[in-house]
Amino acid sequence: MSLKEKFSTGPWLIGIFIFCGAMAGVVLLGLLAAVVTEKRSEVASIFNNKVEDIKGIEPKSERWGKNYPREYQTFKQTSEMNFKSKYLGNMPEDILEARPDMVILWAGYAFARDYRAPRGHWYTIEDMRATLRVGSPGVGDSKDLQPATCWTCKSPDVLRMMEKMGVAEYYKAPWSSLGSEIVNPIGCADCHDPETMELTITRPGVIEYYQRTGGDVKNATIGEMRSLVCAQCHVEYYFKGDGKYLTLPWDKGLKAEDMEAYYDELEYSDFVNAVSKTPIIKTQHPDYELFLMGPHGEKGLSCADCHMPYVSDGGVKYSNHHLVSPLKDISASCQVCHRDSEETLRNLVYERFDSIVELRSRLEPELAKAHILVKIAMENGATDEELAPVRKLIRAAQWRWDFVVASHGAAFHAPLESARVLSHGIDKTFQAQLLANEILFKHGVTEFDLPDISTKEKAQSYIGLDMPLLEAQKAEFMKTVVPKWIETAKANGRI
Amino acid sequence: MSLKEKFSTGPWLIGIFIFCGAMAGVVLLGLLAAVVTEKRSEVASIFNNKVEDIKGIEPKSERWGKNYPREYQTFKQTSEMNFKSKYLGNMPEDILEARPDMVILWAGYAFARDYRAPRGHWYTIEDMRATLRVGSPGVGDSKDLQPATCWTCKSPDVLRMMEKMGVAEYYKAPWSSLGSEIVNPIGCADCHDPETMELTITRPGVIEYYQRTGGDVKNATIGEMRSLVCAQCHVEYYFKGDGKYLTLPWDKGLKAEDMEAYYDELEYSDFVNAVSKTPIIKTQHPDYELFLMGPHGEKGLSCADCHMPYVSDGGVKYSNHHLVSPLKDISASCQVCHRDSEETLRNLVYERFDSIVELRSRLEPELAKAHILVKIAMENGATDEELAPVRKLIRAAQWRWDFVVASHGAAFHAPLESARVLSHGIDKTFQAQLLANEILFKHGVTEFDLPDISTKEKAQSYIGLDMPLLEAQKAEFMKTVVPKWIETAKANGRI
Repeated sequence: MSLKEKFSTGPWLIGIFIFCGAMAGVVLLGLLAAVVTEKRSEVASIFNNKVEDIKGIEPKSERWGKNYPREYQTFKQTSEMNFKSKYLGNMPEDILEARPDMVILWAGYAFARDYRAPRGHWYTIEDMRATLRVGSPGVGDSKDLQPATCWTCKSPDVLRMMEKMGVAEYYKAPWSSLGSEIVNPIGCADCHDPETMELTITRPGVIEYYQRTGGDVKNATIGEMRSLVCAQCHVEYYFKGDGKYLTLPWDKGLKAEDMEAYYDELEYSDFVNAVSKTPIIKTQHPDYELFLMGPHGEKGLSCADCHMPYVSDGGVKYSNHHLVSPLKDISASCQVCHRDSEETLRNLVYERFDSIVELRSRLEPELAKAHILVKIAMENGATDEELAPVRKLIRAAQWRWDFVVASHGAAFHAPLESARVLSHGIDKTFQAQLLANEILFKHGVTEFDLPDISTKEKAQSYIGLDMPLLEAQKAEFMKTVVPKWIETAKANGRI
Repeated sequence: MSLKEKFSTGPWLIGIFIFCGAMAGVVLLGLLAAVVTEKRSEVASIFNNKVEDIKGIEPKSERWGKNYPREYQTFKQTSEMNFKSKYLGNMPEDILEARPDMVILWAGYAFARDYRAPRGHWYTIEDMRATLRVGSPGVGDSKDLQPATCWTCKSPDVLRMMEKMGVAEYYKAPWSSLGSEIVNPIGCADCHDPETMELTITRPGVIEYYQRTGGDVKNATIGEMRSLVCAQCHVEYYFKGDGKYLTLPWDKGLKAEDMEAYYDELEYSDFVNAVSKTPIIKTQHPDYELFLMGPHGEKGLSCADCHMPYVSDGGVKYSNHHLVSPLKDISASCQVCHRDSEETLRNLVYERFDSIVELRSRLEPELAKAHILVKIAMENGATDEELAPVRKLIRAAQWRWDFVVASHGAAFHAPLESARVLSHGIDKTFQAQLLANEILFKHGVTEFDLPDISTKEKAQSYIGLDMPLLEAQKAEFMKTVVPKWIETAKANGRI
């Protein structure tokens, strides 16, 4: 066979094609691998080339931010309060001014003095110092209104103080005694392990609930942790006993009726309403609980899935730490799962809010009226024994009202459950009014005037608050006490 | 070059492999094509080899069934009432017996006599003859309680009678005058064009609503038609004027408040409650309307998507015509979209029902009590003028109660909207009670007994119904009148 024949072109050409195809494939795979490796190496480099070496409790988020600039940059955006939406981002700043009935509901409790639209995590310390709810301790004869427990959700400095003082001692200290120690707003250390950056539960409340009920929060999955770090604070809790020990009332379950049963069994109340003398439970903010009862919770989503959507920046995928309504970035949040237009999705959220706000707006004034009817009955000789069933109904109704009102985003997180709870609130409020009326008639009272509580000022004056004094004291407090706290903190290297 | 060299095996082997591979591909494609063609030809054969040639109005579904055996076979399954679930398929047969408060709410109206769990489409004619709500016309001195309008949703024979008599004349005829004409239960002709089998709207109500509001139901998409054929009957409607002309009250919108405004403007009421003398709107069944307000409607689904899921039978894909709760076949209905277990999905439905049933169960007895308070006030000298605002509240509350209670599957179709509407019902009911109490006290009535309405018998006796007489008349009616209707229908070839 001749060489020419031996190397006949037909089979060779096929061979060359196969070879070239294979080569092209190898090159493409190589390119893909390079992209993957680049991403990996960038992620690895973040871990390996840390600028700051953080160990133990580090409350200063700016130090963490040097290692994790993207997360810190977006977290700093919680200082931006420019997002507006129909409800979520458009609340009146002074809520008592917009809804003065609340002053009656909280009469005898610090919330009747001051209740403002919530601001971003960036402002936790600033806002806490400024609110009338903590009083103006140290000004004139003003004393502490609150225990240190109130700081618990406001700052990573809390972790330092808990370690230093012991948890129980920390809780029972007066609020103002830690003014120069607790100075950094919520930050990285609240949710992250400084060495592994893994999500971690730092607050005792959730951990102790798990222990008490035979579980261990350490067994939580990553998905669960993406909600549980939020649930450290965004839950219903109370200050137990004289030690004001922060405790989660979940032992009988997470529904409004379950926690109510828990509190009733303890005969617990946060305050006695100054108008009706009703022992009231002030709901904190059962955000996590209501989230679990709604469609997204039922599907196993986590808080972070919608409030901290993933963002791609060059080769790095990270969680957006600008904690805000998902309506601010529907495409990154909702549209990851929902194939509807932004406008449709926004309107679906608004519709849910419309329904719940409608029911809340019916309940609120009727509940205030129920308190006032009891007061009128008292003034006309009704006894505590006669009024006991009315107060029981008011307590139950107000717990339900507050359960929805105090919970951030309840109308969206669990629209049906919110409506159900408010509906029972309306039911019980009117039952209270009917009973109160009966008692009034029994005491011969058929005609009476209801007070004018149509503005915050009128309502606050009706319940006997000296607001000018409280505000003057607060101004003095902000001018004299707070600057000293900041000065001391700086001297001690706390900020 | 030798033959051996010329036919060197190397390149040839490659060629043979390629050839065989190509052949295998061709064979596989051929097989696929054969399957597709078989399906097509089977579908084509259904259309081309019709056993029955149906033209015009054919109320006998068994004739259509010869051409479309799968659809007819499944439609016949609407006679099976063996599906049980926590709520949907497990209602007490006699609802008034289970919930006697309803007797008070409907006092003065035929529903107070008889209200039973709904049965499948198969039973529309049987059940209509048997209910006490149509009375026993022709027995003793019993006259017609209802106009022919009542037949409208019960049978395709209605189309024949509308064509023969004219729509307006048909509506105003006495119900019993068409007893021997309207004899076939709901069937194929109600929703299908006999020649093209396309979905078609046969009832004037929906068509006229579209015309009145400047639209044309003929522009509806196929998806919309898959709901609109159901909406021919599963909607809110009323019998307008002396001609009892079936009309949809949608002109101001589809929400409870919109239709209420429509009725109020007309000063329309279906009956005056015999206990409280309140003019009441009896809600029919706003199923379609509530469906549109819930999550599935908002996503653009149709009734048929869940209630008539596609089934594959050999080469043919068809819609299951066994109209029943989708919970009966979760895999064919829900799991087409939802990737959750059957148990999870079933429980999510039950949860929604639990919440709504809970609110309904609070509203129902309180509303009955409101009616009774007005009666007591009347007995103690309260005037119509005094009672007008109370009755207005009761009318509004009962409309809301019935809006949810009468609507099939409201709790699932639109859980939040159902809760919202019931919640306003509770609100208005208690406002009515409060006002009624004030009037009672004004008339010096501070103590009164509420009647015992704890059973259906006691409630019916309280409102003055002679049930033994009505039942005896019905038994006679079923024994003497109905057999004659059937005989005549058979003689005329109607069945």
